[in-house]
Amino acid sequence: MLSPVTPEFLAPLQASLPEAVFRAEPTGYLTEPRGRYQGQGTVLTPGSTDEVAQIVRACAQARVGIVPYGGGTGLVGGQIMADGPAPIILSLERMRAIRAVYPSENVLVAEAGVILADVQAAAEAEGRLFPLSLASEGSARIGGLLATNAGGVNVLRYGNARAQCLGLEVVTAEGAVWHGLNRLRKDNTGYDLRDLMIGSEGTLGIITAASLRLMPQPAQHGTAMFSVASPVAALELLALTQAQLGEAVSAFELIHRQGFDFLAEVGPEITPPFATPPEWTVLIDLGLSQGVDPVEALSTLFEAAMEAELTDDGVIAQSSAQRTALWAIRENIPEANRRIGSVSSHDISVPLSEIPAFIEQGAKAIAALGELRINCFGHLGDGNLHYNVFPVQGKSRADHEDIRGKVKETVHDLVHSFGGSVSAEHGIGRLKVNDMTRYGDPTKLVMMRAIKTALDPLGILNPGAILDPL
Amino acid sequence: MLSPVTPEFLAPLQASLPEAVFRAEPTGYLTEPRGRYQGQGTVLTPGSTDEVAQIVRACAQARVGIVPYGGGTGLVGGQIMADGPAPIILSLERMRAIRAVYPSENVLVAEAGVILADVQAAAEAEGRLFPLSLASEGSARIGGLLATNAGGVNVLRYGNARAQCLGLEVVTAEGAVWHGLNRLRKDNTGYDLRDLMIGSEGTLGIITAASLRLMPQPAQHGTAMFSVASPVAALELLALTQAQLGEAVSAFELIHRQGFDFLAEVGPEITPPFATPPEWTVLIDLGLSQGVDPVEALSTLFEAAMEAELTDDGVIAQSSAQRTALWAIRENIPEANRRIGSVSSHDISVPLSEIPAFIEQGAKAIAALGELRINCFGHLGDGNLHYNVFPVQGKSRADHEDIRGKVKETVHDLVHSFGGSVSAEHGIGRLKVNDMTRYGDPTKLVMMRAIKTALDPLGILNPGAILDPL
Repeated sequence: MLSPVTPEFLAPLQASLPEAVFRAEPTGYLTEPRGRYQGQGTVLTPGSTDEVAQIVRACAQARVGIVPYGGGTGLVGGQIMADGPAPIILSLERMRAIRAVYPSENVLVAEAGVILADVQAAAEAEGRLFPLSLASEGSARIGGLLATNAGGVNVLRYGNARAQCLGLEVVTAEGAVWHGLNRLRKDNTGYDLRDLMIGSEGTLGIITAASLRLMPQPAQHGTAMFSVASPVAALELLALTQAQLGEAVSAFELIHRQGFDFLAEVGPEITPPFATPPEWTVLIDLGLSQGVDPVEALSTLFEAAMEAELTDDGVIAQSSAQRTALWAIRENIPEANRRIGSVSSHDISVPLSEIPAFIEQGAKAIAALGELRINCFGHLGDGNLHYNVFPVQGKSRADHEDIRGKVKETVHDLVHSFGGSVSAEHGIGRLKVNDMTRYGDPTKLVMMRAIKTALDPLGILNPGAILDPL
Repeated sequence: MLSPVTPEFLAPLQASLPEAVFRAEPTGYLTEPRGRYQGQGTVLTPGSTDEVAQIVRACAQARVGIVPYGGGTGLVGGQIMADGPAPIILSLERMRAIRAVYPSENVLVAEAGVILADVQAAAEAEGRLFPLSLASEGSARIGGLLATNAGGVNVLRYGNARAQCLGLEVVTAEGAVWHGLNRLRKDNTGYDLRDLMIGSEGTLGIITAASLRLMPQPAQHGTAMFSVASPVAALELLALTQAQLGEAVSAFELIHRQGFDFLAEVGPEITPPFATPPEWTVLIDLGLSQGVDPVEALSTLFEAAMEAELTDDGVIAQSSAQRTALWAIRENIPEANRRIGSVSSHDISVPLSEIPAFIEQGAKAIAALGELRINCFGHLGDGNLHYNVFPVQGKSRADHEDIRGKVKETVHDLVHSFGGSVSAEHGIGRLKVNDMTRYGDPTKLVMMRAIKTALDPLGILNPGAILDPL
């Protein structure tokens, strides 16, 4: 059983650590973006790996829980511990050094508290690309992004957060430091603890720094939005696009008309690229090497897609401003969703070829639950859809409290029946612990529990996230 | 303490499993490619995942060791248990089904015993590429390739074996089956057991099947060999090549003149592309998307490299036959090395920018040990060099028995001092257990031991590989 943080517990830490570690007020650390959890605890903001280790050792000795805290942008409550003995909220925000950049190696070493946009900027300053990109990049921090294996819009080409990481520095549950910040592309010396830590949401260790892989910057970018006749046509267009353009396809996003309708209904105001939004649209982004003209490449693609009857309308960005305008549609849909207020949101993935059947069956299953609207959009190229269910006009989220659980269960059951995942990119946190137990492979759950017990025998690291508390 | 296989142990298995499981003679399973270990044990060849699980349960009950066996091509003794109570050698060779191919998803599901070349062919039959490629692809099997996280020549572009895998089916040390064969690009539901199993060399579970990621086939290939003035110039040429051609660069291999000299000295006979081999050469391979002419792209690169004084001679393949001829040089160097007979071979990686200093200091350190020849070649783009030390002409490997250990230690100490890895792609097996203990991070070793104990508490899975036996 864990102990709560007490003044007696804090006193020796206050005596030995700098004042800056204690300056933070808990306000702001106790809520999360969707406002569904109210946290508790004492915030500490260590300035170095050694200070993190010292705090963890104290917590291990007193068996006090630790909730690691990055940018606070997580959507599944991984950063918020609402119940149980008050924990230490260990915010990495003061560890914001970019320790080194090795442009000739395409490597950058960043501390856990560095904000994603700052890593992107540091890479760009050296003529390189750090390809991880997502809506919260202005506040999400590297430690949290890796701990949750964040996704975003460039996964199709560059992979998720895991794929961007070459090495980690981690403080273990005992307060020891694993110095694993290697800059190597290949290292087969023992178990892959790096990937085990990535995505473990702070339950197996606390990431304090990471060596990150940079990429060459594409010489040219191209963006287009094509109507597609159906999800089947969207998948065929994806295959055609990849056949023509290979890895140059950075993003391939699906947008349902509902997204355009929501934007028109509640904003943010955008300039629609089509007079009448098609039922289905795809947003295609290319990063091309030298010598390939993006407009020409996208025109060739459009003609082939027309010929194959996959599309009948399209817009190809002719300038950087037009690229931004097309992306603004996709990027503002989550905000429109927030303004409407979902009955239930789902971050799911299914095998690519099952997407059309999933969308069809999902519509039927939701219709059977009541009069609702579905906004289905997202990273089609990754099989990852944000499948969100909304009230009809004139009704609100609050009018559907009674069926919220049923909506979620219906969607997740369907996803599971297609061999899909009920958390494609957001993680488990505390919100989806029961889903994982319900849908997870039993042998996997046994192994996960064994690993948790092996690496955190006292159960002090992010108690209740991913797995029920010990 | 483990028990040896006995007739009493085998009797109930013989009663319940098909005869085909027992037909294999141990001959051929007890030696390895370099002839350094002599194995022992009883070979079983289960035909299904259930049969694997049944065997593992019997071994767990009697505490009999299990050495998982793929194609037998490993170079570090992971597939050979020379000491201790005679184990079951569990060969996956009869599990050779390609269970499914999903071309529209770029996914293929293969059992552990499928040979790499057969996966490549099955992908090609669907117009797709399975990019893992290495010298032993005609005999290495998928299970072993994943268990050892194999590398090869395409890692620069496509990543190592780990990057090709979407999901696994694994029999645990208890004989339970983890059904993790998902076909998803994104799945953040819990700990990354897939990557933990990959590279664990059969010590944490037995891979019985894998879902594998396929890639679009490049529309065109280009190959060239350029002289380079030095390793520094080779790195600058790599940067230039990537700046011009982005991810189209599939391979970037470094060859020292010693390789050409060995080929001339002992064969295999090849056609040298240069009248006099330059001291350093790079082999560049491109896989290009539609509309980019490979010869033109490589000519543009060559001109820029000339202007930057990185090269003064080059050959660009004008045909598929010429491509094959250029690659034959690279691919025959390991055979020439075998014919010469190395004093000590090293599969190492160092951070990319440290390669020139490593090569320079390595030459000095080896020269201090005696009159020896170094053949340094390999996957420069990955920072992975095969750094092999040979006798001079007229002397043999046997003449240097006394300094072999010292040579290895000298090279590995130097690698370690540069922040490198003493096993870049071959793994730890039994050959490098002491190296890992010597150079490994102590906290990492503690965590590895904890995970091994958690997932294989009886220590029956590949005893003595990676970690000393329990």
